[in-house]
Amino acid sequence: MSTEKENKCSTVRVVLDAMGGDYGPSETVKGAMRALDADNIEIILVGDKDQVEAELANYDLAGKPVRIESSEGKIGDDEHPLQAIRSKPKSSILVANKVLKSGEADVLVSMGSTGASMAVAVLALGLLEGLDRPCIGGPFLGLAPRTVLVDMGSNIDCRPGMLLNFAALGVVFARKFLEIPNPTVGLLSVGAETAKGNKQVQESHQIFQESHLNFVGNVEGMDFFTQKADVIVCDGFVGNILMKYTEGLGSALSQFLGKELSSRMAPEDVQSFAASLWQMMNMPRTMGGPLFGVNGAVVLGHGSCKGDEVAGAINTATRCVRLDMVESMREELSIMNRQETPSTPN
Amino acid sequence: MSTEKENKCSTVRVVLDAMGGDYGPSETVKGAMRALDADNIEIILVGDKDQVEAELANYDLAGKPVRIESSEGKIGDDEHPLQAIRSKPKSSILVANKVLKSGEADVLVSMGSTGASMAVAVLALGLLEGLDRPCIGGPFLGLAPRTVLVDMGSNIDCRPGMLLNFAALGVVFARKFLEIPNPTVGLLSVGAETAKGNKQVQESHQIFQESHLNFVGNVEGMDFFTQKADVIVCDGFVGNILMKYTEGLGSALSQFLGKELSSRMAPEDVQSFAASLWQMMNMPRTMGGPLFGVNGAVVLGHGSCKGDEVAGAINTATRCVRLDMVESMREELSIMNRQETPSTPN
Repeated sequence: MSTEKENKCSTVRVVLDAMGGDYGPSETVKGAMRALDADNIEIILVGDKDQVEAELANYDLAGKPVRIESSEGKIGDDEHPLQAIRSKPKSSILVANKVLKSGEADVLVSMGSTGASMAVAVLALGLLEGLDRPCIGGPFLGLAPRTVLVDMGSNIDCRPGMLLNFAALGVVFARKFLEIPNPTVGLLSVGAETAKGNKQVQESHQIFQESHLNFVGNVEGMDFFTQKADVIVCDGFVGNILMKYTEGLGSALSQFLGKELSSRMAPEDVQSFAASLWQMMNMPRTMGGPLFGVNGAVVLGHGSCKGDEVAGAINTATRCVRLDMVESMREELSIMNRQETPSTPN
Repeated sequence: MSTEKENKCSTVRVVLDAMGGDYGPSETVKGAMRALDADNIEIILVGDKDQVEAELANYDLAGKPVRIESSEGKIGDDEHPLQAIRSKPKSSILVANKVLKSGEADVLVSMGSTGASMAVAVLALGLLEGLDRPCIGGPFLGLAPRTVLVDMGSNIDCRPGMLLNFAALGVVFARKFLEIPNPTVGLLSVGAETAKGNKQVQESHQIFQESHLNFVGNVEGMDFFTQKADVIVCDGFVGNILMKYTEGLGSALSQFLGKELSSRMAPEDVQSFAASLWQMMNMPRTMGGPLFGVNGAVVLGHGSCKGDEVAGAINTATRCVRLDMVESMREELSIMNRQETPSTPN
């Protein structure tokens, strides 16, 4: 199995959906340029040729391994993913997936519609064996940077078997990306005792216990801060609410602290402090969210990402490639499904 | 209908489970004394006579309307509520409920086991007509002090009809306690669109829409901070996770800010600032959680409450009595069930 150390300097080829996100090329191209400056990567920008070229004209491209792959239109947040995929076959996210699948790139990064990006990735790349659905996971809070949350919102109603698969993917991420040797796994619930939880958690508890995962049982809301589990598993309904709640809280707290501290600290100190706090509450925005479970490396980002955050998602993508994340996830699922299929209910 | 104005000065008789909570009489009696100093109330302390008298000896009781009602033992957090109720008929929470039911007190306050306190209240007082279960609700975050959350954790798997009842109770609380004229109601989900949400939310959406509630549709995690809805409704699984997550985050943030600010502010400023932040993230601890839906006024508090927080819960209890909260909730349920029973699924 390859390790990060072996591949730290290898060139990674990134295909970026330059049209994705609320700001389109102006911020995605900025992010691409920052990422190119920081690391040994090549970038393919997929988008409207004129728009992307106009943005590139703002930078010194001498010796920069960047090129444009032309696309037409983009899929918006307000469109139904599957309908839009059919009606816009040349849109940026579809072309970007084609580039990845052709082997011209090692990893895809998109700030575009999460639903559409996931749907295209599943259709174009397929899922790893043993999975019904992909999921989004990773650390989600700067105050608990070594706690991985799966699922962050891609699967709303989950069967216990799905949660078990997501846990396995989260464990691989924690082991490789965060270098945690034997990551512990907890099921998010309302009490530590086995009997505590809704029907979904109670049913899941049993198959988690029978699995080869390093399962520590139920964890509670405060356990994001207690290191009781490295990987915390919940369905995407709870995960999405927690993530958006945390984002909202981050903004509200920054404002509150800004006001509270303005009489006791210099304005520029207050501002930098409020900004760093906001960032701690918005971790998925600064590092992107790896899409776990598709047959290819894909990192999705928040639609409102600015250049630095786009560069952060590209950095996450590059690390995922060097860590051979997809291959490790495939192996983990294969081990688990060999061991556990007989007793895994749907 | 009685209003707060009419009754602001009326004497309220509070029965307090003096044995409840992690610290027992030392903090509950302290809280009772503070509440007595601040308001026109009478207090009945239920507990072990010797222990409570020993605590009372620390205070000047001249002219204080306080007396002891003797009980034997208490029900712990680790006990199965129904078993403990049978095996400990003279325990403090059971005796306190008897005092309330007899009419000697207007409201009951307990920091003891939430499960046992709820079970005893339901058994002793009964539920308001139209309800299957009580719930706990109220504001839960100092940064959003006018947003009511129901349910905070008492009902894990909820049918849509239960959520609708909880919403009605939350609306009465928002209207009377927070003086919001026509409170808006939102269903906590993963997107604002009607189709977004898990099965429970989708089914609930329809009956909420058909109800007489001022329903604004789905709200998301960030909407605790956007004033989109005055009452946010979720099942107790999500509510409990959110509440404990917020508590944990409050502690983690206080520590983080304490460290970050120690180089820029005086130590005593840092300490008071971190403490006020912690308190903002622990609102149910400072004001108690009213138990909605039982046929009597009951306010529950966190087990780890100290004297000031016990006094806060007593203050909440006193206001609930003066606002005639239970009667208003009974009326609201009666109106709703008259209008909506035909189309309300279970």
